[in-house]
Amino acid sequence: MSKPYVVGIDIGGTNTVFGIVDARGHVVAADSVKTRKHADFDDYIAELHEGLSRLIKANEAENQIQGIGIGAPNGNYYTGEIINPPNLPWGPVIPLAEKVSKAFGGIPVAVTNDANAAAVGEMTYGAARGMKDFIMITLGTGVGSGIVINGQLVYGSDGFAGELGHVIMKRNNGRVCGCGRTGCLEAYCSATGVARTAREFLEVRTEPSLLRNLEIEDITSKDVYDAAMAGDKLAKDIFNYTGEILGEAFADMAAFSSPQAFILFGGLAKSGDLLLKPIKESFDKNVMPIFRGKAKILVSELKESDAAVLGASALGWEARYRYEAPHIEKTEED
Amino acid sequence: MSKPYVVGIDIGGTNTVFGIVDARGHVVAADSVKTRKHADFDDYIAELHEGLSRLIKANEAENQIQGIGIGAPNGNYYTGEIINPPNLPWGPVIPLAEKVSKAFGGIPVAVTNDANAAAVGEMTYGAARGMKDFIMITLGTGVGSGIVINGQLVYGSDGFAGELGHVIMKRNNGRVCGCGRTGCLEAYCSATGVARTAREFLEVRTEPSLLRNLEIEDITSKDVYDAAMAGDKLAKDIFNYTGEILGEAFADMAAFSSPQAFILFGGLAKSGDLLLKPIKESFDKNVMPIFRGKAKILVSELKESDAAVLGASALGWEARYRYEAPHIEKTEED
Repeated sequence: MSKPYVVGIDIGGTNTVFGIVDARGHVVAADSVKTRKHADFDDYIAELHEGLSRLIKANEAENQIQGIGIGAPNGNYYTGEIINPPNLPWGPVIPLAEKVSKAFGGIPVAVTNDANAAAVGEMTYGAARGMKDFIMITLGTGVGSGIVINGQLVYGSDGFAGELGHVIMKRNNGRVCGCGRTGCLEAYCSATGVARTAREFLEVRTEPSLLRNLEIEDITSKDVYDAAMAGDKLAKDIFNYTGEILGEAFADMAAFSSPQAFILFGGLAKSGDLLLKPIKESFDKNVMPIFRGKAKILVSELKESDAAVLGASALGWEARYRYEAPHIEKTEED
Repeated sequence: MSKPYVVGIDIGGTNTVFGIVDARGHVVAADSVKTRKHADFDDYIAELHEGLSRLIKANEAENQIQGIGIGAPNGNYYTGEIINPPNLPWGPVIPLAEKVSKAFGGIPVAVTNDANAAAVGEMTYGAARGMKDFIMITLGTGVGSGIVINGQLVYGSDGFAGELGHVIMKRNNGRVCGCGRTGCLEAYCSATGVARTAREFLEVRTEPSLLRNLEIEDITSKDVYDAAMAGDKLAKDIFNYTGEILGEAFADMAAFSSPQAFILFGGLAKSGDLLLKPIKESFDKNVMPIFRGKAKILVSELKESDAAVLGASALGWEARYRYEAPHIEKTEED
């Protein structure tokens, strides 16, 4: 009875990308709308509905959609809401699943955060196919995570589990983190963390570096990558430092859930061996002997452009939230 | 079709305690044998079989046992083996489930480690009844953990997940841990860790303390507890220090699985508010804002004397490993 397609929607700070996906994980068609164009959430939903309906019609997929999966920052699987989103114009509580299901006449909807969506995508179509225990680490502007244990995403008691970017790596004099605390993994190992490391190293150290040709406040992780690829010693050291901290963090995570693999996703994950090598060395050095040599450190196999939509869409197959129109209570006489 | 009793066996370094348990978690009868009496594992199994059979017979429970659950250090749920046990005379690999099921004519057996057994016991009969997401922390000679997510024990890819005594709390100049690394939670917050803290504080600080009346190398966590209860400032500071580190560790664990509760078990957990208060303060201070005020810090509700057997027995209800006698291959003519 299941229908041949699902829809994946990835709500990012700038763009909302959506696509129709078949059971093999092929993105049949995709399009996008601007996320922040409408200050009113209902207007945003109306434009999303219009764009997605057009896409569905153009691909003759009317009544062929099994469910809609949505990845969104702070998306909560249990409630179907977005709660206190850091970069979205609505809030503090956005009834996302309800509004989307309602707009599409009651199609089942599932909501989760972007890192969890990526983990589901990886398990369904990517490097984690066949794995029941792995941890997806997204290395972007922040550090996110999607944890899979025994084949299931870990949502925790409140739907917000899996905030591994916010384990504390430096308990003394740690960097200030966006979450309001200090020393978080994210403050060191996100793209912005790498840029911060670059500024620190350039200030503290005196050796020459290609990075010194740049305005120090404008340096990005991409600049550090380019310099490292050009053989710059200081830039390579920045990647070594980043990888060392990630390896230490992964060692603690292994003590928690002993995963088969850590899978890296997002901009920084494209740094290849510059980052993978120091992570692996640090992980081997720091992990408890009983877990040594067990977990693999892998890079996502999903195309960056498809991954967000694919991951979200994979949730659509088992989406359960379904909007039902309120009905008038019957009287006893009926 | 299920039978009215299960058997729980707790294999400790000194005693092996076993009991017959009914569906309400009442220990009908219990007994024990010495764990280390026999250098040969088969002799140990023979004595265990004899003692347990006697107990079953005395309680008219023959053919009434649904399954046998066993908690043992380094017990592996997937393989039914004990692997590299630190305090047992056999090894390195002990086929525990096979030997016990065989001795009892094929009764299903389940094996796990002692902390996991305690978590199952707590979920079935104790403070975690009705909880689907909690973390059991055992504070004894070491620090162990049993993690429950979505109602299931976390075993990980290899059956050894849940080694939260070995997350790193001090990355610089950390104490040497029994696992061969430095800075582990266990090196600070186990009973032995508390005694180590006492020795450190007594050496570094100069103030008077009741603990100075004791031989410094012989001080135990119980001595520290007694001194703190007598109002000793330095002893109280030792508990504050211990609780502060536990609260920091729990904050990181909350970022992983966002549990409803942390449940403390074992000798140190009996310290009451001396330990609970600093843990709660430290947890509130260190946890990510999104998780603040959510997880409870509780003490096990299981009687210490029953807990190990109860916890192990709870696994017996769904034990699946069953020894089957090898059979001779039939020839084609049969």
